[in-house]
Amino acid sequence: MSFDRLIGKIIETQNPTVVGLDPKLEYVPEYIKEKCFAKHGNNFKGAAAALYKFNKGIIDQICDIVPAIKPQSAYYEMYGYHGVKCLYKTIRYAQEKGMFVMVDGKRNDIGATMEAYSAAYLGTTDVAGEQLEAFGADALTVNGYLGTDGIRPITDICKARDKGIFVLVKTSNPSSGELQDKLIGEDSVYSVMGGMCEQWGSDNIGKYGYSAVGAVVGATYPEQLAEMREKLPHTFFLVPGYGAQGGGAEGVAKAFDKNGLGAIVNSSRAVMLAYKKMEGYTEKDYAKAARAEVIRMKEDITAHIPEIKG
Amino acid sequence: MSFDRLIGKIIETQNPTVVGLDPKLEYVPEYIKEKCFAKHGNNFKGAAAALYKFNKGIIDQICDIVPAIKPQSAYYEMYGYHGVKCLYKTIRYAQEKGMFVMVDGKRNDIGATMEAYSAAYLGTTDVAGEQLEAFGADALTVNGYLGTDGIRPITDICKARDKGIFVLVKTSNPSSGELQDKLIGEDSVYSVMGGMCEQWGSDNIGKYGYSAVGAVVGATYPEQLAEMREKLPHTFFLVPGYGAQGGGAEGVAKAFDKNGLGAIVNSSRAVMLAYKKMEGYTEKDYAKAARAEVIRMKEDITAHIPEIKG
Repeated sequence: MSFDRLIGKIIETQNPTVVGLDPKLEYVPEYIKEKCFAKHGNNFKGAAAALYKFNKGIIDQICDIVPAIKPQSAYYEMYGYHGVKCLYKTIRYAQEKGMFVMVDGKRNDIGATMEAYSAAYLGTTDVAGEQLEAFGADALTVNGYLGTDGIRPITDICKARDKGIFVLVKTSNPSSGELQDKLIGEDSVYSVMGGMCEQWGSDNIGKYGYSAVGAVVGATYPEQLAEMREKLPHTFFLVPGYGAQGGGAEGVAKAFDKNGLGAIVNSSRAVMLAYKKMEGYTEKDYAKAARAEVIRMKEDITAHIPEIKG
Repeated sequence: MSFDRLIGKIIETQNPTVVGLDPKLEYVPEYIKEKCFAKHGNNFKGAAAALYKFNKGIIDQICDIVPAIKPQSAYYEMYGYHGVKCLYKTIRYAQEKGMFVMVDGKRNDIGATMEAYSAAYLGTTDVAGEQLEAFGADALTVNGYLGTDGIRPITDICKARDKGIFVLVKTSNPSSGELQDKLIGEDSVYSVMGGMCEQWGSDNIGKYGYSAVGAVVGATYPEQLAEMREKLPHTFFLVPGYGAQGGGAEGVAKAFDKNGLGAIVNSSRAVMLAYKKMEGYTEKDYAKAARAEVIRMKEDITAHIPEIKG
């Protein structure tokens, strides 16, 4: 129920961070690309093979110390259906290695279509009587602009299958305030959306006090993080924007509760490109460099939050 | 530039409607499914083959009288990467038949990731120096909750490659008002979003007076349609919710300007399932029934709007 599975892994690893696997081809070391293009050609199949090899290397190096990965669907879809197949294989591989997988797809639609997205990412699809998992992730990011009937189908699946969602509340990008900070009466749009998350999750709260309906709140807006943490006591936060986008550990700390729980902080580029930025690594060591960056990030964040307690 | 290509096709066919190809397996006639499952097995590959055959049949029957199709990505993603390959093939096939293809994906993200979605659906992806189209659609629906920097990357692609987007403004579902109808000062959230569409498109207005940044405004809210048509003179509307969701032709008419332009009305289920609902058709005639429903819909809508003039 709820985000208990994810929180359990966070407690186990004592690490409230998630690695965003958003593998643009330009991030992938040359030796991997050369091999894959030689085998499959300079095409999407070759690209997808390179991305998968890159992802596997990182997952192998981090699966014992990081609770989760967050593949961002756009970076797979840009390589066509071969890229989407790579997304599927990445999800499966990380789960085999014991990781919790949240697909960052920010999906949204009216009820009937949201059922299809729910089936696609967290549920099953009926094919001639067989119930098959299309992607079989553990959680999905969604956009709540359409209101309750665009969310209810996926919370039903979350309840039935022990999965979770993260709804966009206050995003990490510079212009997020254009709509999200506007005031509806005395409340901001992001706060109204946050209130809906609290409501949507209210019938499915787990043993750590958090529901299956989380919220995306950006590390780049620490004040809003603090405000939301206080106003949304049962809503677990996915916090993007740490590192490359400018969010620091002190700000990020505001997303956590007194038990060191309540949030998971994402880092993508800094981990994937650690081999280019940290000293002493060549591209052959990209996965080891990723592990080193993950450890650095974990230490940076846990130094700023209360001890993580179950 | 802008939506001129689409509007040109609407004038040519004298038909301001688009067929939503959201092919759930249960909509596909048994004889198609039997053949595909026998060949590929009761799996996603078999399902995707059936969906593609179904789509092709409909496209063949409507391509001379309908300007566009709108495949909804959720209904392909629920069949895994095989389903996504079927989406790609459907886009290509419809374009070969001269149709304008708008992918209904309601994508949204921060700037860097929106670049990836833009490349995926409307642009090209660099693979070892080759510029390849991942999906190569003509337009994409997007969600503007993240503000300008989540939209600008895709309007740049629209300009460079003569494509368009439709931003969710007022959606057709029952609970769309929960956020969208809330007042920001004296303006509703949907109206603020509509104003942003007008702004985002302002530097790219075509010969019919419409930009490349359209808006999704539901047929189920005729008053809001009329309000938006008046407030957003350069924003072309994609109008879902006609038919199965309850929107009628009189309401839909409010989306159009005095030249019978300014909007395109979508119908999905009523077309795909026409063979089950119209008299005199068996499942073997599903595509002919779809054509008959398309003609009925065109006549219903054009009877309520001014003559379509270029």
